[in-house]
Amino acid sequence: MSSHSVESYLAARTALISEERSIRRDFRELQFATEEELQADQIVRSIKLEEAKTVWAADHPDIPNVFPGMAYLSARNLITKTKIFELISKMPKGALLHSHLDAMVSASVVLKYALEEPAIHVKIPNRLTKASLASTPPAFRGLKPSEYSDEVCLTSNLYNPGTWVQIKRARENFSDQLGGPEGFDAWVIDSLTILPGEAYEKYDSMSKIWEKFQNTFNIIGGFTRFYPLKKKYFKEFLLSSIEDGISFVETRLVFFRGYLVDADGEESVGYSELLTAFRKIIQEVKDEMANQGRPDAFFGCRIIYTTLRFVSCEELDWYIDDCIKLKQEFPDLIAGFDLVGSENDLKPLIYYIEPLLRCKSRVEELGLDLPFIFHAGETFGDGSEADNNLYDAILLGTKRIGHGFSLIKHPKLIQMCKERGIALEVCPISNEILRLTSSVCNHPLASMINQDVPVALCSDDPSVFGNMGLSFDFFQVLMGSDLNGLLTLRMLARQSLEHSTLSNIEKEKALASWGKQWAIFVRSVVDGSIFA
Amino acid sequence: MSSHSVESYLAARTALISEERSIRRDFRELQFATEEELQADQIVRSIKLEEAKTVWAADHPDIPNVFPGMAYLSARNLITKTKIFELISKMPKGALLHSHLDAMVSASVVLKYALEEPAIHVKIPNRLTKASLASTPPAFRGLKPSEYSDEVCLTSNLYNPGTWVQIKRARENFSDQLGGPEGFDAWVIDSLTILPGEAYEKYDSMSKIWEKFQNTFNIIGGFTRFYPLKKKYFKEFLLSSIEDGISFVETRLVFFRGYLVDADGEESVGYSELLTAFRKIIQEVKDEMANQGRPDAFFGCRIIYTTLRFVSCEELDWYIDDCIKLKQEFPDLIAGFDLVGSENDLKPLIYYIEPLLRCKSRVEELGLDLPFIFHAGETFGDGSEADNNLYDAILLGTKRIGHGFSLIKHPKLIQMCKERGIALEVCPISNEILRLTSSVCNHPLASMINQDVPVALCSDDPSVFGNMGLSFDFFQVLMGSDLNGLLTLRMLARQSLEHSTLSNIEKEKALASWGKQWAIFVRSVVDGSIFA
Repeated sequence: MSSHSVESYLAARTALISEERSIRRDFRELQFATEEELQADQIVRSIKLEEAKTVWAADHPDIPNVFPGMAYLSARNLITKTKIFELISKMPKGALLHSHLDAMVSASVVLKYALEEPAIHVKIPNRLTKASLASTPPAFRGLKPSEYSDEVCLTSNLYNPGTWVQIKRARENFSDQLGGPEGFDAWVIDSLTILPGEAYEKYDSMSKIWEKFQNTFNIIGGFTRFYPLKKKYFKEFLLSSIEDGISFVETRLVFFRGYLVDADGEESVGYSELLTAFRKIIQEVKDEMANQGRPDAFFGCRIIYTTLRFVSCEELDWYIDDCIKLKQEFPDLIAGFDLVGSENDLKPLIYYIEPLLRCKSRVEELGLDLPFIFHAGETFGDGSEADNNLYDAILLGTKRIGHGFSLIKHPKLIQMCKERGIALEVCPISNEILRLTSSVCNHPLASMINQDVPVALCSDDPSVFGNMGLSFDFFQVLMGSDLNGLLTLRMLARQSLEHSTLSNIEKEKALASWGKQWAIFVRSVVDGSIFA
Repeated sequence: MSSHSVESYLAARTALISEERSIRRDFRELQFATEEELQADQIVRSIKLEEAKTVWAADHPDIPNVFPGMAYLSARNLITKTKIFELISKMPKGALLHSHLDAMVSASVVLKYALEEPAIHVKIPNRLTKASLASTPPAFRGLKPSEYSDEVCLTSNLYNPGTWVQIKRARENFSDQLGGPEGFDAWVIDSLTILPGEAYEKYDSMSKIWEKFQNTFNIIGGFTRFYPLKKKYFKEFLLSSIEDGISFVETRLVFFRGYLVDADGEESVGYSELLTAFRKIIQEVKDEMANQGRPDAFFGCRIIYTTLRFVSCEELDWYIDDCIKLKQEFPDLIAGFDLVGSENDLKPLIYYIEPLLRCKSRVEELGLDLPFIFHAGETFGDGSEADNNLYDAILLGTKRIGHGFSLIKHPKLIQMCKERGIALEVCPISNEILRLTSSVCNHPLASMINQDVPVALCSDDPSVFGNMGLSFDFFQVLMGSDLNGLLTLRMLARQSLEHSTLSNIEKEKALASWGKQWAIFVRSVVDGSIFA
């Protein structure tokens, strides 16, 4: 007679679960965790369990579909009230490897900067009324003095659509019926961000939400092409990242129009001048941190050169040459090369195969450390052009993959990413708002972590999504799985530095700096001072 | 100087894509496809491409978020107008392996049957008004003559809540203000189905939509516990499945209350009597098919014994004994054992480990072919109890996995499913309506197919979702991926028979019958007669 004992069953069960869990790096490395880290992990798990009841199972009449890991834009106001968020916002997060520079500083700060610049003007294509406000986007630009107009009000009956108005005047004279100056601020900020009602209701398809998303870039571009503002913007990006616990950044900058607009309204600032300014700002920020006694807080910033995936092959050749020249001039600053824009609508990598292979040959010939760091698979296609970008990204030797949302559908490519150490730059909040997933809980991230595909957690376009820094992204990842704990977040932070473009020596240093900060953070969790 | 040639790149690319694609069974077996199958596959692909433009990229002002594979309930009216759907509805689909018997016949047909039964009565807990109609569920029951009441109207001011009214009278006298008899029909049918506005707006959380879902079962139970209706229901289920191209069924029947209600209102019909009736009906249907010259259209039907995942361990022991007794009495009919109900809210498998191991020992001791066929992982949890059900299902030797939605998060268990030939009963439309996924495009199915995890496509609860048969499920799978073609659907149909509980000899026969139907179908696609 056969008999199955509960004891032997439970032993087999424990063994199987352990075997599977140990594929995950955070569980596998549990043996190397310090006593204090294990304590901190337990503390975080118990707060998480408590808040699962007090926050995420409680009744919130005005908030739909509340659960841990729920849709980010609806959850935002709940998230910021939690102890877990307070804790995560103080966590040293390592590197931010996937971000678009024009979407990194909150809209209200950018507007404040713009109001300080007399050259910046605004225009609209039609009369502004209460009804047309939400659908009328402002356009901004730094003008030459000769282009300044006498127009002082966007909202008067006499306003001639298309006429530039100095931004400060436009704000001061914004019609009371549209909310006066505060109404102006709200209108501009809304044009630069995606609101919950837009993401989850109004723009109810991927193409509609992408259109709104692209529009925010068109609008912000009027500000960020203005060189004096761009410099302040860049410094604020670095400082606010540091405040969020990010110590190193590789950000994507679009090199597209050739020149930025200077204070005098002339298109006279080349990218070489911009990078020189960036280099200076980076050093300033490092010095400031050192002066504040926080030398470990900031390790630096690099630029991923990107152009847009609708240029022609000939144009791409030009951009590649330009990127190579800038890499030679700024070897410390230029981190890699990428193409950006909606993969589902624009050109696939294979369309550019000739210039991209030429680029590879040139880079090898010149002995440059200038890897491709391609966006690929930001789609829920299966065998579509956007999905197939994953084959080309990997075959072209991409150092990391931007998004790689559809990698989950590729058993062979997953294996290659693991073998070759190709990390995914995963942006769960961005993917949710752009309608690839309905919550972090059904995002492929959990599967990637469980099968040990290297992942760096990223924010993509935080100013558009209202999730500045990386704290919200880390929060969602912690909430989105019962397995994830503080040591999972530690793993993600470490991996972000490990998969940066830093040299091995620099990486060691950056990891050592991060490690010091991490130890202080862990101690503050254990002794409770983090909540003091 | 290094140089990368386009030719060698393209060769490497083709090789890599082929290598990955050949992991999929449909691509791997392409070499065994007949010339006619390859032609039919091409025809289907070109219609699919054409309709991607004419239907799925066209403007439909009243339908949100239109794209191939879009949310099923919104897409339904578009789907039924496509040539692809017309074609799929005529496709021989093999076996339906995951379905709940109380959710298999369309609500309007069940209502028609109920109106033919004088014993069936209806009651409501409160007064019906226009405002309360949608939130007031009807309750049905077959009464004993002594229980019949004189009440003739549910909607009169004199109706005493909780009083039974004979269903036909209730319908005839339904208030004109509530739509008269047609209003009654609509009210009953709505209570048995999930409408698009409910799935995508009103019940905006998993717990809310599950509550509505459970309610439909509570209401339909009043009809399906009535033995005379149950028999008609079962026959209609088989006949309508056959009309949809399904030739074999393993359906889950809940054994819970012990007895069904007979025509006289007495709770006198035991499950042994019910199974005897089912056996007779199955034979009748086989005979009818043979008489119609369609002997290959129907191979049979089996019952998966299920009870509910909230019973106690002692109660489960009783149900297991009952299941074993019925298996001994009806070895041809009883296919396996399962527990049903929301995994996220009710007991996990591990809670029942003692009775389940005792069951395993008993079944082995008795030499019965009575496998577990467990629901597991119908969740987007990661390490939650519902997710952990996957470990127990597999360790307990489940023959297949009902849903296995979260298997995607388990690299080790995926490998075990492949090695042990454990098929997933995948129900993409059900998962979408119950809010696990927002469309078939981000359902784990594509990943499962791409890594060759055996899958049988299933409908789960079609009468609740309004997707009778398997045609809508096959349609969504075809739409949800650029890789999927007719040969993918062929693979899914074959796999459903291969992973049934039929013996090897029976399987051969069932596959041979299906193969004959398939060849006729393929020919009709190639010669165009399918659209004649």
